[in-house]
Amino acid sequence: MKIYLAGPEVFLPNAREMLNRKAALARAAGFIPLSPGDLELPPSKTRRDKALSISAVDEQMMYEADGVIANLTPYRGISADVGTAYEVGFMCGLGKPAYAYTNIARGHFQRQVDYYGGRYATDAEGETRGPDGLTVDNFDMMDNLMLPGGIERRGGVVVIGDAPPRAVETDTKAFEECLRLMAEKYLR
Amino acid sequence: MKIYLAGPEVFLPNAREMLNRKAALARAAGFIPLSPGDLELPPSKTRRDKALSISAVDEQMMYEADGVIANLTPYRGISADVGTAYEVGFMCGLGKPAYAYTNIARGHFQRQVDYYGGRYATDAEGETRGPDGLTVDNFDMMDNLMLPGGIERRGGVVVIGDAPPRAVETDTKAFEECLRLMAEKYLR
Repeated sequence: MKIYLAGPEVFLPNAREMLNRKAALARAAGFIPLSPGDLELPPSKTRRDKALSISAVDEQMMYEADGVIANLTPYRGISADVGTAYEVGFMCGLGKPAYAYTNIARGHFQRQVDYYGGRYATDAEGETRGPDGLTVDNFDMMDNLMLPGGIERRGGVVVIGDAPPRAVETDTKAFEECLRLMAEKYLR
Repeated sequence: MKIYLAGPEVFLPNAREMLNRKAALARAAGFIPLSPGDLELPPSKTRRDKALSISAVDEQMMYEADGVIANLTPYRGISADVGTAYEVGFMCGLGKPAYAYTNIARGHFQRQVDYYGGRYATDAEGETRGPDGLTVDNFDMMDNLMLPGGIERRGGVVVIGDAPPRAVETDTKAFEECLRLMAEKYLR
């Protein structure tokens, strides 16, 4: 079973090392890993051409993969990396098994409250809102409901990890738990 | 042609008004609009159940739709709303036409630089990085390349609007341009 390893690791200074570590763990669990950055890109003339090549290569790997494990740890803000969110949607759209994890245990509601420095209020309809009027959604979910919703409604699991602050980008415990759960379901 | 209107409008204090305005514009352009929030939700016992119902209803509308127009205006940070990013991926995975717009003309590279207060540097491999070591990606794209990449490689268009700061959440010029382009291609 081939699994696509989605996540913002590609943006880390030690990207190649992290991608290799995750790929090795996936192999040890019995899977064939496919990671962004695995394939050689054709030469490109402009930055935009290069971006389109990367998009094509990553989607090609998703078409080839039989499932995905996505790192939805909040990235530069309240929520997951949007590229990874796109990829989870893409795999759900293709009807392929999707699993995900986050290395931050603090839930979506609380992270939104943190973003507003604790200031939020309940409006006349009972909706919690920040000082800018935007909903502070309170669904007991780990991020915008479309992400865990799409995953869990298809039988996938979102593993909530709790990495120490310095290891939020590199800890693999929650990822390994995804591998274990997927192996149990698909590799017996 | 049914089009799904994806975007973070559902989080606005005047959500219903905005969704209605966009739906009316879509109808005027010749489309049948489907918006999150259009359908009645079944009663749910827990917050999680309600979240899963919303996810199911929104995905049901995407299965029914023949295309999507997504509002990818940056939402509470550098990038688009992750729920909307999931939905763009979902529609691209389903192979349906995807169009998108942003109401903020400032590009992704510059928004990342703003996030770092202007501090970034070029590493030995020529990669631009913020003080935290993360890539400041510089692809001449309006957000993470997977979003415009998935849309443009399928023949869709990302319209770059430039709304005044106070109308970033409510301006419909770029949305109307998406409608015009889609109508030109699909409704003649």
